[in-house]
Amino acid sequence: MNQVKVLLEEKEMPRQWYNILADLPTPMTPPLHPGTGQPIKPEDMAAILPMNLVEQEMSPHRWIDIPVEVLEKLILWRPSPLMRAVNLEKILDAPVKIFYKNEGVSPAGSHKPNTAVPQAYYNKIFGVKRLSTETGAGQWGSALSMACQMFGIQCRVFMVRVSYEQKPYRRLMMQTWGAECIASPSERTKTGRKVLAEHPDSPGSLGIAISEAIEDIMGDSEARYSLGSVLNHVLLHQTIIGLEAQKQMAMLGLYPDVVIGCAGGGSNFAGLALPFVRDKIHGKNIDIIAAEPTSCPTITRGPFAYDFGDLAMTTPLLAMHTLGHDFVPAPIHAGGLRYHGMAPIVSHLVKEGIVGGRAYNQLETFKSGVQWARCEGFIPAPETNHAIAAVMEAAMQAKEEGKEKVILFNWSGHGLVDLASYDAYLSGRLIDYTMPDEEIDRAKKTVGQYPKP
Amino acid sequence: MNQVKVLLEEKEMPRQWYNILADLPTPMTPPLHPGTGQPIKPEDMAAILPMNLVEQEMSPHRWIDIPVEVLEKLILWRPSPLMRAVNLEKILDAPVKIFYKNEGVSPAGSHKPNTAVPQAYYNKIFGVKRLSTETGAGQWGSALSMACQMFGIQCRVFMVRVSYEQKPYRRLMMQTWGAECIASPSERTKTGRKVLAEHPDSPGSLGIAISEAIEDIMGDSEARYSLGSVLNHVLLHQTIIGLEAQKQMAMLGLYPDVVIGCAGGGSNFAGLALPFVRDKIHGKNIDIIAAEPTSCPTITRGPFAYDFGDLAMTTPLLAMHTLGHDFVPAPIHAGGLRYHGMAPIVSHLVKEGIVGGRAYNQLETFKSGVQWARCEGFIPAPETNHAIAAVMEAAMQAKEEGKEKVILFNWSGHGLVDLASYDAYLSGRLIDYTMPDEEIDRAKKTVGQYPKP
Repeated sequence: MNQVKVLLEEKEMPRQWYNILADLPTPMTPPLHPGTGQPIKPEDMAAILPMNLVEQEMSPHRWIDIPVEVLEKLILWRPSPLMRAVNLEKILDAPVKIFYKNEGVSPAGSHKPNTAVPQAYYNKIFGVKRLSTETGAGQWGSALSMACQMFGIQCRVFMVRVSYEQKPYRRLMMQTWGAECIASPSERTKTGRKVLAEHPDSPGSLGIAISEAIEDIMGDSEARYSLGSVLNHVLLHQTIIGLEAQKQMAMLGLYPDVVIGCAGGGSNFAGLALPFVRDKIHGKNIDIIAAEPTSCPTITRGPFAYDFGDLAMTTPLLAMHTLGHDFVPAPIHAGGLRYHGMAPIVSHLVKEGIVGGRAYNQLETFKSGVQWARCEGFIPAPETNHAIAAVMEAAMQAKEEGKEKVILFNWSGHGLVDLASYDAYLSGRLIDYTMPDEEIDRAKKTVGQYPKP
Repeated sequence: MNQVKVLLEEKEMPRQWYNILADLPTPMTPPLHPGTGQPIKPEDMAAILPMNLVEQEMSPHRWIDIPVEVLEKLILWRPSPLMRAVNLEKILDAPVKIFYKNEGVSPAGSHKPNTAVPQAYYNKIFGVKRLSTETGAGQWGSALSMACQMFGIQCRVFMVRVSYEQKPYRRLMMQTWGAECIASPSERTKTGRKVLAEHPDSPGSLGIAISEAIEDIMGDSEARYSLGSVLNHVLLHQTIIGLEAQKQMAMLGLYPDVVIGCAGGGSNFAGLALPFVRDKIHGKNIDIIAAEPTSCPTITRGPFAYDFGDLAMTTPLLAMHTLGHDFVPAPIHAGGLRYHGMAPIVSHLVKEGIVGGRAYNQLETFKSGVQWARCEGFIPAPETNHAIAAVMEAAMQAKEEGKEKVILFNWSGHGLVDLASYDAYLSGRLIDYTMPDEEIDRAKKTVGQYPKP
């Protein structure tokens, strides 16, 4: 009987997060203050984030201690199991071993609580009484709702309307954990009202929802904003995934040749990949691949440029791969991948050639996900299906090359709250979207007005 | 930092199931052939179950080997973690330690795959090509769908209509795993058509759905029926839960004073409890409590009598606590607890005073479940909320008595596919149902026509 799970005891859980900024071979392009055009200072971010998280966002330290109050919540589901997909390996009949970190074991069913818990904690000790945030598919919103409830602070979530309607159960999770969930664009904010006036049927986007959440806390000194991806400190909190995976692979005496994650804002991908990126910087030979949708091909087709993180241009200018902050992606079911930009850290690594990107059509990703569910049991989230499609491609490539490979990927979450999308796929109602070239040209024009990174 | 999880490695997983029949202080009352009034023989069951499972159903052996092909699937999520509810302990402020087996970690989100996998396996090696079954809340139907897919046999599920409508995601899970799901009562069977003719709006019941599933396989020599609870071999497969729990408690140097599970047909309760029942028979002092709904109070108010397992009277006469095979329970959201009968093994243990029962109203169970979710993170299934209500009552009792107690319960499944019920609760649309005394009188009249056990 093949071993399919590698478990870590609670006492083996990493006690520090890993900060890639300490190891980058070339420095990151700094975020700019849109007014002055100068690199932003910590105090510029103080209105929207608590200062303890701002410090983490800008920290140069390689290792950052995880507070014990955070560990006490994370151990409800962490360390997550490293699992081997032996049934899929048999079907693919390729010379590969396929391992995955099962982040679906968290109460919210995804990797998102890994950063929701520390964010709620740091806000709590900073004296914040209420957090406002955006969510795409709802994985982030539900995770933050749970974390805020655990630390006794209020939570308001602006949920991208297409997902709000497609995924009612995510809203119900947020409410069960005591949060308020609002479809975005909404009538609650100037940004929302403006979008609705122009596009009453707008499906919404993460860019719009971020603007609404930030506007929502402005003027309330006891409220702050919280972001579930993109920023450095979010990726930092997710590195616990990769750090655990390194220990677990070492227990097997194995090391991955290929590391894969799906990427929307970049946090689950980076959470697994960054500790391996460190090894790659120090000479390891690894393919590190971010899988994204063809309908929102930020890494594979978007320019690397300064752009805003949100529609209303309230964030700093971030140097990143972007499709333009006013881009509204097609209503694919992988709502968590519908983001115009990409984490600056991930974008930097792509620019440096350390990380690569691959884009997949919606139908191919669901085909991969159903095949997975039927042999490995666990039903993946639509976002995760992108990673599985990339795994299958990598396995086929190994077969063609005749090379034995160890593939490791981030199984970022389960799809039990996304089953309407499987219904649409199985009943033939799902379609593919590919971003047209004109949209790429438009994106280049949009970002052309800002400084060059 | 308190330890909250006790993990077992795959190699520590039990290799045998435990058969309580070998240790009962008094013999079970045998099932009767309804035609002859004589104890049924193996060949009487051969039309609906494969003979290898019939043998298991009647086996006198204390330990029964788990086939390696079954273990290879179970290790996808087993051994399940034993967890300590430290956050709830703090809130309850009672002198108790609360432990639970988290059976929500399976791909189907409940304990049901523990028997679905061996049932699909034994049918497969017996040459069966298609299984037909019933399901209440859908936890069983989804589990069997997954298991059949893993072993390459077809699966058809008759799902109690009220749950089919309340829980569309369960149907979608079954379809994702390749099964066919039909609302019961249906037009597919004589039984279904008869019920619909008399009650076109019938919410259905497990008793009706069982009849439909059995009727569905009659005359198809390559098809068999599969039951997700009640029968001896089903409870046998679930004992892996309790066997693991005993190892895990021993690792902590602890032993439970109170063992709790919710009970519909009795399988998750028995799965945890039976290995502890063995200890109780041998002198251990343990309270063993089955938690059930006041709307379907089989153990606490139903007579112990011979009755049929299904509406159409196609099963053998089983000696059990029953509310009458024609009883249609109120449409509570804990669909898995809407069964008129109770596993003969559990009923026997109740009759012998080894196991006790407690009944809870729907609103109390959801109040308990929301409190759980808000401190422990994981959102429980509505069925599981009954066990949590019993845990809270046991904790309060320990507080009143001023006694330190270790409470162990079966967290039988998560509620992520049952969130509509939380929505109903949180928005004040949920009501309580208590079974009226007249219904108990009616039940007694129904079973009065059969032999006395």
